[in-house]
Amino acid sequence: MAYVNEAAAGGDKEPRTERGRKTLRRLIEAAAAEFGDRGFHEAAITGITQRAGVALGTFYTYFESKEEVFRALVRDMSRATRAHVAEAVKGAPDRLAAERIGLEAFIAFVRQHPELYRIIEEAQFVAQDVYREHYRSFADAYVRNLAGARDRGEIADGLDEPRAWALIGMSVFLGMRYGLWDEDLSPAEVADTAIALVSEGLRKR
Amino acid sequence: MAYVNEAAAGGDKEPRTERGRKTLRRLIEAAAAEFGDRGFHEAAITGITQRAGVALGTFYTYFESKEEVFRALVRDMSRATRAHVAEAVKGAPDRLAAERIGLEAFIAFVRQHPELYRIIEEAQFVAQDVYREHYRSFADAYVRNLAGARDRGEIADGLDEPRAWALIGMSVFLGMRYGLWDEDLSPAEVADTAIALVSEGLRKR
Repeated sequence: MAYVNEAAAGGDKEPRTERGRKTLRRLIEAAAAEFGDRGFHEAAITGITQRAGVALGTFYTYFESKEEVFRALVRDMSRATRAHVAEAVKGAPDRLAAERIGLEAFIAFVRQHPELYRIIEEAQFVAQDVYREHYRSFADAYVRNLAGARDRGEIADGLDEPRAWALIGMSVFLGMRYGLWDEDLSPAEVADTAIALVSEGLRKR
Repeated sequence: MAYVNEAAAGGDKEPRTERGRKTLRRLIEAAAAEFGDRGFHEAAITGITQRAGVALGTFYTYFESKEEVFRALVRDMSRATRAHVAEAVKGAPDRLAAERIGLEAFIAFVRQHPELYRIIEEAQFVAQDVYREHYRSFADAYVRNLAGARDRGEIADGLDEPRAWALIGMSVFLGMRYGLWDEDLSPAEVADTAIALVSEGLRKR
């Protein structure tokens, strides 16, 4: 499963042993399934521990509440999504090529992880600060990438921050429409069209 | 209040008298305040009727349940948002100018109606079909506008549907970041930057 990485839960209860880290990973994966299937309000800690195959008491070694595991899950999914896209674009020759590859990889990732949207979007109502942190982290990375590309003369001048939010919104909505809802175009077709728009602009020349 | 228009609730219970239409408008406006302040789960029908200054029984003349008034509200906000943007862009000389004016108008609208996001976004969890209908209606209108502009030679060739979803996502995220969360740039500054990106593209020339 793609979501879990080393710093999954963070905070005070970071496990010190390999076995502890494995249990934490199982809990986070089980939480993704439980929250993804049932939503925050219907989800139960016992649903998570049953899916993870651990005792209820074990849950409380790692998390204090349903909200705490939800917050850890959103942060974990956020990091995993960024890591997946960053890995995909690693060899890209320039920023515009990276945009194209990254968008295709993101839409493909959504198809493999349809629970991603439900969980991230529900964070708006359960843990608004983690929701904002998720998108602000994406935006910060984007601003750095755009500034670097501007310095190298790859992209035109402009305010990087609103450009970053525009590009994130585009990806989120294309992921929702062509990753989550329907698959009437391939991730490559969607990325080709959207990146032609972003690179060359709509204006007819 | 900007949300309410003639066909507010739709369906079987469309009021026939002017007085009935006024009461329905008051209920929809009260529902926007109640759901916007408290969210769907905490909101109460009695909260809506108290805000509207009508008897509880009156509510049931128009709606069968909290979910039904919520659905009517989402549809009403959706129509009102589209109508507001359509009105703003009416005199625009071409599609790219309309994009710029429409985005500025949308961000300004969000600042005046911060409850818009909470209510539309919560529809994902309360009435997923109405949520999808909201964005699909926007996309349909966008596809028609892009096709028209393509026919008139104003914009480059490309698949209109993914371009429409890209542009909608961009607007939604810029509205969230610069309309709802922070006001560190003016709607005009955000629209200028984003529409330069959309019209001319990122590529340095």
